[in-house]
Amino acid sequence: MRDEFRADLQIVSQLLVDMAEGVRAAMRQATHALLTADRRAAETVIERDAEIDNLYRHVEERVCDLLARQAPVASDLRAMITALHVAADLERMGDLAEHVAKTALRRHPSPAVPAELRPTFTEMAATADRMAIKIGSVLARPDADLAAELDGDDDAMDDLHRNLFGLLLGEDWPYGVETAIDATLLGRFYERFADHAVNAGEHVVYLITGEPTPTPG
Amino acid sequence: MRDEFRADLQIVSQLLVDMAEGVRAAMRQATHALLTADRRAAETVIERDAEIDNLYRHVEERVCDLLARQAPVASDLRAMITALHVAADLERMGDLAEHVAKTALRRHPSPAVPAELRPTFTEMAATADRMAIKIGSVLARPDADLAAELDGDDDAMDDLHRNLFGLLLGEDWPYGVETAIDATLLGRFYERFADHAVNAGEHVVYLITGEPTPTPG
Repeated sequence: MRDEFRADLQIVSQLLVDMAEGVRAAMRQATHALLTADRRAAETVIERDAEIDNLYRHVEERVCDLLARQAPVASDLRAMITALHVAADLERMGDLAEHVAKTALRRHPSPAVPAELRPTFTEMAATADRMAIKIGSVLARPDADLAAELDGDDDAMDDLHRNLFGLLLGEDWPYGVETAIDATLLGRFYERFADHAVNAGEHVVYLITGEPTPTPG
Repeated sequence: MRDEFRADLQIVSQLLVDMAEGVRAAMRQATHALLTADRRAAETVIERDAEIDNLYRHVEERVCDLLARQAPVASDLRAMITALHVAADLERMGDLAEHVAKTALRRHPSPAVPAELRPTFTEMAATADRMAIKIGSVLARPDADLAAELDGDDDAMDDLHRNLFGLLLGEDWPYGVETAIDATLLGRFYERFADHAVNAGEHVVYLITGEPTPTPG
């Protein structure tokens, strides 16, 4: 029974790792679509979000099946509930990558991001990528220290986000309201992506250390 | 055992109803703060979000306790997983009300919403309120028809959201980029509030009818 549970848990963990990799690839490709006005890349991200959603459903089915067959208690039960939380965060991160891709597509063939904002979005995307890698790593091999680094990454994302508003509100902003609206929404998509990565990391830390569960945010 | 499960489930349902009422009150008060630049109201929403978060944690504790003690299967297990989903949606709706309140506070004593946008936000808030009421009702007494009405409400919200962008992008928009940024974010908060209400409703419908579970959005 115990070995069976471990084997089942391993399958769930692997599904979560697959989700983290899918989400990372989605945000990388969405950013590429955004910064190079690459229509095909944007469409691919949108099409492939269904794969992330499918992985999410597989996690949920596996967890339900496991709860029904094995009736885990204590830390095993906690691991199951945590898997559901992490899957929900990753699923949402996939949606946010899709939103970035949709924004790129809506402005195509024009670029959605003007030259002045490209360095900021390039940095935001690099930060998001770093966070997605860390989530994948801690899911593959629990590491509370690595998970805790996500807080620092999130602070960096928040700084970039504030910096973005500074650029939009500068007296010399030449692009008008439409571009400011796109940039506002895009900034929020990257920032929320980072928030969900932090949440997922906190859930993994909880599993490792028993620190109290965070509220999803 | 069966009676005990029913009694526990009843407690979980009541916690969800309490959450729905808390979330509704939060968004009402946040809108009031937004439209009347009422600092005290905004602060109250922000302070009281902790109560919604607490209810969320109570739902999760109850569900875990119930899973550990009773090891439900089939539809009982489904009800537990659904409760977790609905609680997560409601918790997030509370956060979005808090975001509205924070936006009101950031601009205080100026109003964050100029006169031209007040009718749109008043309508968005009325739609959000209708949806929060319906979630509370279907949680108190399952009603698939009432839950299905949420889709129509969400369509109304999407129309208002598009209408908002139309106003922001009109040639006669006189308020500059800062107000457009606030309005963009506020629009997104109400629209996401509605999305989570639809998700929560779909989970309840799933519980009633067995229709496949939606992906959280």
